Amino acid sequence: RDTGAREQPWLPSQGWRRLPHHLQGDELWAKIRNEARRDAEQEGALASFLHSSILAHNSLNRSLAVLLANKLSSQTLPSTQLMRLITEAQEDDPDIMESAIADLQAVYERDPACERYTTCLLYYKGFQALQCYRVAHWLWKKGRKSLAILLQSRVSETMQVDVHPGAQIGRGVLIDHATGVVIGETAVVGDNVSMLHHVTLGGSGTGTGTRHPHVDHGVLLGAGVCVLGPVLVGAGSKVGAGSVVVTDLPCHCVAVGVPARIIRQNCPREPS
Amino acid sequence: RDTGAREQPWLPSQGWRRLPHHLQGDELWAKIRNEARRDAEQEGALASFLHSSILAHNSLNRSLAVLLANKLSSQTLPSTQLMRLITEAQEDDPDIMESAIADLQAVYERDPACERYTTCLLYYKGFQALQCYRVAHWLWKKGRKSLAILLQSRVSETMQVDVHPGAQIGRGVLIDHATGVVIGETAVVGDNVSMLHHVTLGGSGTGTGTRHPHVDHGVLLGAGVCVLGPVLVGAGSKVGAGSVVVTDLPCHCVAVGVPARIIRQNCPREPS
Amino acid sequence: RDTGAREQPWLPSQGWRRLPHHLQGDELWAKIRNEARRDAEQEGALASFLHSSILAHNSLNRSLAVLLANKLSSQTLPSTQLMRLITEAQEDDPDIMESAIADLQAVYERDPACERYTTCLLYYKGFQALQCYRVAHWLWKKGRKSLAILLQSRVSETMQVDVHPGAQIGRGVLIDHATGVVIGETAVVGDNVSMLHHVTLGGSGTGTGTRHPHVDHGVLLGAGVCVLGPVLVGAGSKVGAGSVVVTDLPCHCVAVGVPARIIRQNCPREPS
Repeated sequence: RDTGAREQPWLPSQGWRRLPHHLQGDELWAKIRNEARRDAEQEGALASFLHSSILAHNSLNRSLAVLLANKLSSQTLPSTQLMRLITEAQEDDPDIMESAIADLQAVYERDPACERYTTCLLYYKGFQALQCYRVAHWLWKKGRKSLAILLQSRVSETMQVDVHPGAQIGRGVLIDHATGVVIGETAVVGDNVSMLHHVTLGGSGTGTGTRHPHVDHGVLLGAGVCVLGPVLVGAGSKVGAGSVVVTDLPCHCVAVGVPARIIRQNCPREPS
Repeated sequence: RDTGAREQPWLPSQGWRRLPHHLQGDELWAKIRNEARRDAEQEGALASFLHSSILAHNSLNRSLAVLLANKLSSQTLPSTQLMRLITEAQEDDPDIMESAIADLQAVYERDPACERYTTCLLYYKGFQALQCYRVAHWLWKKGRKSLAILLQSRVSETMQVDVHPGAQIGRGVLIDHATGVVIGETAVVGDNVSMLHHVTLGGSGTGTGTRHPHVDHGVLLGAGVCVLGPVLVGAGSKVGAGSVVVTDLPCHCVAVGVPARIIRQNCPREPS
Repeated sequence: RDTGAREQPWLPSQGWRRLPHHLQGDELWAKIRNEARRDAEQEGALASFLHSSILAHNSLNRSLAVLLANKLSSQTLPSTQLMRLITEAQEDDPDIMESAIADLQAVYERDPACERYTTCLLYYKGFQALQCYRVAHWLWKKGRKSLAILLQSRVSETMQVDVHPGAQIGRGVLIDHATGVVIGETAVVGDNVSMLHHVTLGGSGTGTGTRHPHVDHGVLLGAGVCVLGPVLVGAGSKVGAGSVVVTDLPCHCVAVGVPARIIRQNCPREPS
């Protein structure tokens, strides 16, 4: 490991991996139920909501499906139909729930305002919008594009997060506060990426093919960051709030400004 | 045309005009119905929604009125009342539907993620918010200010687009993604303008009279652009994402930065 | 007063105080009822809404509680339960309604697009979100954290304003347009502060203790301003749209840019 440390004093950012402090799916679900039980006892006003959204169910899959279906339901698509759809996606593609579990741990780990798993599961629209995207992406890959776009638009209306179902997003992703986030059709977002509200991964011009950014593992994008066009933000890099990125950024750097300039390089720790 | 080309190598940006590839209103409606029919066959989950919003109606006017009334309805103003109001506006001012048709073609033409007219009509909150503004503007001109402001606030809540009903907005306008767009009371937006999400056409200070920008024909405003005060953005110009404009910009230039500086001039093509 | 005027040509910004043109609570309520009565006569479509939200009640407290309960109600927390909760908060802490009255006057005074008190009370989501925060903050101080966070998330969904219930916010505060505003857990906002949409008072890093800004009395934060970390924005200062503040700013200055630099100092008038 020491060889070449001077040229590259950081470990390469890797994809999502279970760390010693991460919980297995069933441990996580037990913890969530315990939190919900305590809350229901302490706050009578929440008891009925906590029962119908968590305590009445025997799995995180089911609980998440109910939560998302209620958020997205409308005259256009009632919650029963949404339940069926989300359940079908969860059963067909195990990656959807494994990603949800990784995302939950990411929020708990990285957001200092999030002290409990239920806070994220029940209330964070960034987390919920990401899970809706995972269902819409599954529809998109199956060729059910019009239904995928309906989900996208419904999430944009109700949670103000506009992720194209064609985008590819990794695991352990945190979208904090989330209002105004836009992620385009050909964007790629790696594992362990964190982004704040108002982040845009946008297209440049009207070309065909890849026209959106690739944001690699472990990147942190501050509030209001715009990354535009088919550029690469290298693994483990950090872009300061309000910056506009229109060129490639290397790994493990810090960039700020309009347009963004690199102000630090070879930062050893993952910023997200 | 060649005379003076060196000084001005571009054609002046013009207002909205029907181009050879644009559809007439009835061709457009036929196309929309065909798209909806195909979708209803392929995706059973959508059949009922497509029927009630498109296939059950005999005109785009009616279909649009139903869509907007459903989006805006609340305890405050039920959808039946909204239907009556929107229909009255459409009948009293033919400009409202002509503008809607121009806007639909603009989105189809300029947004590479929009492959069908129904996608825009049914799902794009930027398009829908603009059509709601057109009704609120009609109310404003009739002196029905309190109802106009109710519509404005309802659109801001449900689509996160806050356009003052007093603003003047041309035809063939694209508001892409749309979350967070703010357009002030005395702003003027020309024909064929495109703007991304988070664009602000804001006031400077608390003066009376014109206190908001004039954005001329064919301008493109990137994500998060702020144009502040009674300044002019000249026809055919482009302002890069995240820029702040506080002074006049000439025609057919490109400006970027905080505050925006001109980095290119005499660009011949309309950027929107 | 003249001594030292050269060094400090402005009066220190003070907290909220009743000025000669400000109305007492009961005068304000009488004015609001008059506005509502006139509107109900002129615009039949609004009569029922104006009755149920203003004219049927005998106090501003009650009217505000009904308005907020209707905005926030959902399957999770029905409006009757919200009514009880808001009323309990109003009765337990008189500061909540005194602040609401100060906020109403601030909007009326500083927003040139707001010509009547009812416009703000009924329609401005920045005002309504702030009043919801005041109830959530009361819950937070009582240790009822999970219910406080539910309110926060519901306001973020329905009004796109994400204020942590732990934040401390003064009186006479204007949040204009409001979409995308984010205020973190340990932020402090003084009296008479004005901020536009997309303003972020955000954390830096993951430290414990105070990790958000202190924005002192009478500050004006333009659209999209990010203030990050435990920095101080001095009383009576103004930060231009789109700026990013990561260091302390003195009193009565003007700062702009990414990162923000001071371009004027010792400005005598409060900008908000």
